[in-house]
Amino acid sequence: MFDLKEYLAGKSRLVDAYLRDYFLASPIKPAFFKESMEYSIKAGGKRLRPVLALASYEASGGEKPENILRYACALELIHTYSLIHDDLPAMDDDDLRRGKPTNHKVYGEAMAILAGDGLLTEAFHMLSVPEHGINADALLQVIMDVARRAGLYGMVAGQAQDILSEQDPKGWSSESASSGGIPSGDIQSDNDSRDHKSSAASREMIHFIHMHKTSQLITASVRMGGMLAGTIPAGLEALTGYGEAVGLAFQVADDILDVKGETALMGKTAGSDERKNKFTYPSVYGLEASEQEARDLVGKAISALDGVFGPEAEPLREIARYIVERKN
Amino acid sequence: MFDLKEYLAGKSRLVDAYLRDYFLASPIKPAFFKESMEYSIKAGGKRLRPVLALASYEASGGEKPENILRYACALELIHTYSLIHDDLPAMDDDDLRRGKPTNHKVYGEAMAILAGDGLLTEAFHMLSVPEHGINADALLQVIMDVARRAGLYGMVAGQAQDILSEQDPKGWSSESASSGGIPSGDIQSDNDSRDHKSSAASREMIHFIHMHKTSQLITASVRMGGMLAGTIPAGLEALTGYGEAVGLAFQVADDILDVKGETALMGKTAGSDERKNKFTYPSVYGLEASEQEARDLVGKAISALDGVFGPEAEPLREIARYIVERKN
Repeated sequence: MFDLKEYLAGKSRLVDAYLRDYFLASPIKPAFFKESMEYSIKAGGKRLRPVLALASYEASGGEKPENILRYACALELIHTYSLIHDDLPAMDDDDLRRGKPTNHKVYGEAMAILAGDGLLTEAFHMLSVPEHGINADALLQVIMDVARRAGLYGMVAGQAQDILSEQDPKGWSSESASSGGIPSGDIQSDNDSRDHKSSAASREMIHFIHMHKTSQLITASVRMGGMLAGTIPAGLEALTGYGEAVGLAFQVADDILDVKGETALMGKTAGSDERKNKFTYPSVYGLEASEQEARDLVGKAISALDGVFGPEAEPLREIARYIVERKN
Repeated sequence: MFDLKEYLAGKSRLVDAYLRDYFLASPIKPAFFKESMEYSIKAGGKRLRPVLALASYEASGGEKPENILRYACALELIHTYSLIHDDLPAMDDDDLRRGKPTNHKVYGEAMAILAGDGLLTEAFHMLSVPEHGINADALLQVIMDVARRAGLYGMVAGQAQDILSEQDPKGWSSESASSGGIPSGDIQSDNDSRDHKSSAASREMIHFIHMHKTSQLITASVRMGGMLAGTIPAGLEALTGYGEAVGLAFQVADDILDVKGETALMGKTAGSDERKNKFTYPSVYGLEASEQEARDLVGKAISALDGVFGPEAEPLREIARYIVERKN
């Protein structure tokens, strides 16, 4: 019988140990700068992205997870940098993260910006170091995929849209001056923002934000495991479908937790999305429909693996189920 | 007779055109986010880093500079991101850059942070795309080198030390609580900051800042050209010596321009370093000694190429001379 809890604990212990040793061995100066990065890296979290990369590698027939631990951990550096920058006063202005003061609260804004820049750059350093048994072409493919999905075609673009929608709740209208967006004329012009948020434009926007901001880096994590194990194209396609659905499910579940969850369990303040006038699944679809959507996405993620993956992908399936059932 | 002005203009035209087309062809959304990145990319500048990569590639026998233009331009994305973040209110708080309002003055702080994050990530995307005639191992070597020298062992670390020294003009004492720095007891405890700045600790600090903040990315640019042309180890060693000396000379010359230069020519406010209590070469060594140091570094850069490179490296030598003679 597969024990998910034990599986997650085992994998995240590997990741924690690797990251601790990695920074311990790195002669980074100035020390205060190094400390600011270590502070956020050590703040913990579920290590979901590295764990997904490892699970996907094993599901794809990869036999030596220790060979890809370095690359899996690079994903955690990218995730951590994004949290540090998201929490900045100019962005989401959060004081608390994982139950601790946010990076800029402890080290100041300048150091937090640089800690983020440093972690992001170091992630690509980690990704570029060849390990035994990993070929250079596969590694380049991974770097390209991670950079696309963490950057202009993924996470950073999603965060930009998230910020712009907050500043301008009419959403896509911030783009009306340019060619990229939906003309503002398409957006219902009623003044009640909650009514507004049920419009077709709002649904399109929340999908864009979540798909880019959260789902793409999670998809890159799942794909990384497949790429490094040398999976067949059909395998990579299945993993991509799984990753996108699981990534979206994760963010929908996060939105729901923000409404229903307990501050103590989450390590951040419940209800903060609504106070910030953020576009969330519950604000656009309502709570019940969001819960249904999360369950549907988990089903979609699991069935994406059908016909390509057998019992070796059981950890991926269990992680998908866990993602919507978790309490933090 | 080699015409440097024409050479620089020709190369920077190639870079400008590549960058313009690159963003034009990229379906980046939201449009406002894309615009913020293009704004800073198009603000121009000397394109020194890509030009150095191209010059070094040709000096190393590389025959098709168009094959490495993509990688050379990635350096400009990294340089541009670093300027956007350096100008932020929490960092150097500059309103003017290259004669135009800084990114956050036009697009707001949040968008400026994200534009920087996006450009940095996209640089690694550009670096990971294989071009005809470039092998995967060389490309991984380039990515590793750029990531090290742009990140925790180079530029970001230098900027962190620069910011920390400003906040605490006793400099390295900000590290006294940890193991990485020089014990604060080593620092002269007089209160006049100008006197303080002539101490041995100050000299060590200004060297650390400039070597990391400016010289390392320039060194990576020069090395990139050699690596992609498949230069011999002695060639790469010579290019590294050249790059480090030229990079340092460039920053010393920049410090001197900040004291002596004209605001209109520089496109930023002259004398701003002193107002910010920045550690600069003139503030530590005095103006005359700094000018001598810049000339010495140029000589060092040129002689690093001796015995390995012949007339094919003339552009590199001329660029070194130009770097300390320029007026902006």
